[in-house]
Amino acid sequence: MSQSTLEYALANRIRGLNSSAIRKAFELAGTLKDPINLSIGQPHFPCPENIIEAGVKALREGKTAYTLTAGIPQLREALSLKYRKENSIPYATPERVLVTSGISSAFLLLFNALLNEGDECLVVSPYFLMYPEYIKIYGGKMHTISENFKPGDLAQFRDKRLKIIIFSSPSNPTGTILNKEQLTSLADLAERTGAYLISDEIYEKFDYDKQFHSVGSFYEKAITLSGFSKTYSMTGLRLASILAPEPIIKALTTLQQYTLVCAPSVTQWMGIEALKTDMSSYIADYREKRDFVYENLKDFYEVKKSQGAFYFFLKIKDRDEDFIGRAVKEKGLILVPGYIFVDSPNYIRISFASEWDNLKRGVTALRELAVA
Amino acid sequence: MSQSTLEYALANRIRGLNSSAIRKAFELAGTLKDPINLSIGQPHFPCPENIIEAGVKALREGKTAYTLTAGIPQLREALSLKYRKENSIPYATPERVLVTSGISSAFLLLFNALLNEGDECLVVSPYFLMYPEYIKIYGGKMHTISENFKPGDLAQFRDKRLKIIIFSSPSNPTGTILNKEQLTSLADLAERTGAYLISDEIYEKFDYDKQFHSVGSFYEKAITLSGFSKTYSMTGLRLASILAPEPIIKALTTLQQYTLVCAPSVTQWMGIEALKTDMSSYIADYREKRDFVYENLKDFYEVKKSQGAFYFFLKIKDRDEDFIGRAVKEKGLILVPGYIFVDSPNYIRISFASEWDNLKRGVTALRELAVA
Repeated sequence: MSQSTLEYALANRIRGLNSSAIRKAFELAGTLKDPINLSIGQPHFPCPENIIEAGVKALREGKTAYTLTAGIPQLREALSLKYRKENSIPYATPERVLVTSGISSAFLLLFNALLNEGDECLVVSPYFLMYPEYIKIYGGKMHTISENFKPGDLAQFRDKRLKIIIFSSPSNPTGTILNKEQLTSLADLAERTGAYLISDEIYEKFDYDKQFHSVGSFYEKAITLSGFSKTYSMTGLRLASILAPEPIIKALTTLQQYTLVCAPSVTQWMGIEALKTDMSSYIADYREKRDFVYENLKDFYEVKKSQGAFYFFLKIKDRDEDFIGRAVKEKGLILVPGYIFVDSPNYIRISFASEWDNLKRGVTALRELAVA
Repeated sequence: MSQSTLEYALANRIRGLNSSAIRKAFELAGTLKDPINLSIGQPHFPCPENIIEAGVKALREGKTAYTLTAGIPQLREALSLKYRKENSIPYATPERVLVTSGISSAFLLLFNALLNEGDECLVVSPYFLMYPEYIKIYGGKMHTISENFKPGDLAQFRDKRLKIIIFSSPSNPTGTILNKEQLTSLADLAERTGAYLISDEIYEKFDYDKQFHSVGSFYEKAITLSGFSKTYSMTGLRLASILAPEPIIKALTTLQQYTLVCAPSVTQWMGIEALKTDMSSYIADYREKRDFVYENLKDFYEVKKSQGAFYFFLKIKDRDEDFIGRAVKEKGLILVPGYIFVDSPNYIRISFASEWDNLKRGVTALRELAVA
């Protein structure tokens, strides 16, 4: 049988969906000998032992069956407590919490449940690469606003019929944390336009200068996304949560019955233990790395000091794809191109979620590439 | 804030999506004292210890990071071997295998990737309840054909522009296994109409009289879905696989990057061990239960002898919802209504995935309900 792709008619909604450039970097890393890898979007430290052992316990207790669709009650309870205490969201109750299989599946539920064809969305830019892809899949229209916006800059959207406003803070790819004034103005815009305000807080704990606020702490209708993947180094175990008004949680739960059924049972039990785990020493290590990278690159690249997450977004003179090609060829250095995060070909993303040795070699290589 | 659902505008595609009647039964069971539960769609035995210990090992070895999108290579390899040996599918290679987070997420990928609005689908009836819901979500049009069809009955569809043909064999809810002549005629219809032929084989091992065939063994373009959930009692761990021609696997893998990212890492390692595990004693136990239920109910209900899975689909004189209400009230017996599986209100589904005691009490209650 000949197997050209043409033989297979795919649905229109997934045409143009590209294999992620990050995954390509991931695969490239497998083919190089001793590469310097600054492309990794996940922690380099292991998942803490107490969380691992909670998983072992759940397995040996036979916790392998379906859980309730919205998540095991103990985890929803623990999450609502976390939202109240750590995010200062006073109205967080277990009924407003949905446990999902990672943040990406939360996007799937949200965009699937909320976005009609032709609906307009506002995305803070640079943005996590999945947002525009989801908007594309479900036929929405995307507007962007720079993460450096002042409240007045939002005026242009006040009379639009926005359906979704979405941002990540701390940001992937820039590490920027939106300030309270910015968050307030986004909430005001959501309230005025009737848009759903989706706050992707997966990097909330990676907050190096104590600047992070949950928009949900002062805007009750906010849809807050929280993840376990990055904070506890359990990206492969697929666990996240959505906090939202109850009618939304109900609709998403129904949709989850037909998509993921439930988040992985054993991972849910690990999540309860994770919420009790102090990760501050890991964060302190990343803060030191953040400072090191900034101090050593700021004179070589136009770059904003990252406030959170574990990324820097460097401006470069070349096109990103050319620069990345040169970095691989000359230095064995793996980077992520900026075009997937912003409408410009002149940025690269680097990650400092790395061992010191790899990070130092990477920074040296970047300095050399800048002056070459 | 008032929170009527009306305040929240949901996307059209999920309007009319109902909370599953099975989940309702599940919740009802939690409220009754000492119920007889014949509604459960999952094995009553524990996941075998060697599989559990493979999970423990993976956890303690720190296998908590993202895996490759399509699954860990060792599992894809093991699955392709399984397809070749156990399903007699000679062209199964690792490149044709995608590892997903349970069969439901395989449906999500497939319907999302393949179905355009208005596309026509043929579903063998009674059908697994998710098929019509997915067709509804993505705006398709559903035709049905009885599972008792003769090849000639398919003539009416030969000139239709079908996009998807889907069935489960062994069937949930009837336990029917399609015979080779039926499978061949479905493959012929798929070939003629250009439809994707999706064979849901999640109950493949629950084949009590050695009647099961994979349609993929003689139709290379078949899309074969296999699960770990039911066979190894790991429904909550979320693992399944899709075998399909490579261009389809590539498209689905790209979509998986944006939806589930990867199946749970630890579960994937458990999957490798599961494929080495002999479950025949468990199947023998279910065969005995199948026989017991049939012998004890056949004179009380119009019912076909189940050949596989762990269900019987009983015809009743009352409306299903009325019968089920009476069963709960008079006997504390929990059943699943048939209307979610077939376009008729006169069936109920019972599951014999149960301890003997519960099963015997259930059968007695059903006999009493029939003559009351």
